[in-house]
Amino acid sequence: MKARIKITLKTGVLDPQGKAISHALDQLGFDGIGDVRQGKYIEVDLTETDPAKARAALEDMCERVLANTVIENYAIELDGA
Amino acid sequence: MKARIKITLKTGVLDPQGKAISHALDQLGFDGIGDVRQGKYIEVDLTETDPAKARAALEDMCERVLANTVIENYAIELDGA
Repeated sequence: MKARIKITLKTGVLDPQGKAISHALDQLGFDGIGDVRQGKYIEVDLTETDPAKARAALEDMCERVLANTVIENYAIELDGA
Repeated sequence: MKARIKITLKTGVLDPQGKAISHALDQLGFDGIGDVRQGKYIEVDLTETDPAKARAALEDMCERVLANTVIENYAIELDGA
């Protein structure tokens, strides 16, 4: 079973990396660029085949390892779930 | 208009960051972890309201700035398009 995890900074948390991208795009002549936020995207292959168990394990991974829940949100998508 | 861009390493390109995550999860006692791949996730706010024009601009941004198309793929999702 394949999972896709998006980890994004919470609203209100400063994102200098996103600001740098926004500024770079603007400098390169792209118009109408507003706010840019950069996050992480992680794909995980799991041997677990039960969607509920897989999601529980992934939430545990996000809480403990993958995301810093003080400043980041995470969203989990499971293939075929 | 809001766009979400996922940038992932192409198949076959080594991903040491993903390997490190996979190893860390395994060490922490998570079972059944297979391949892990880490990519980037970027949210862009655009003033452009025409979906076709917005997509064209975003593809140009990805090709020129956001992704290294030699080793990375990108996928663009537009809100309400």
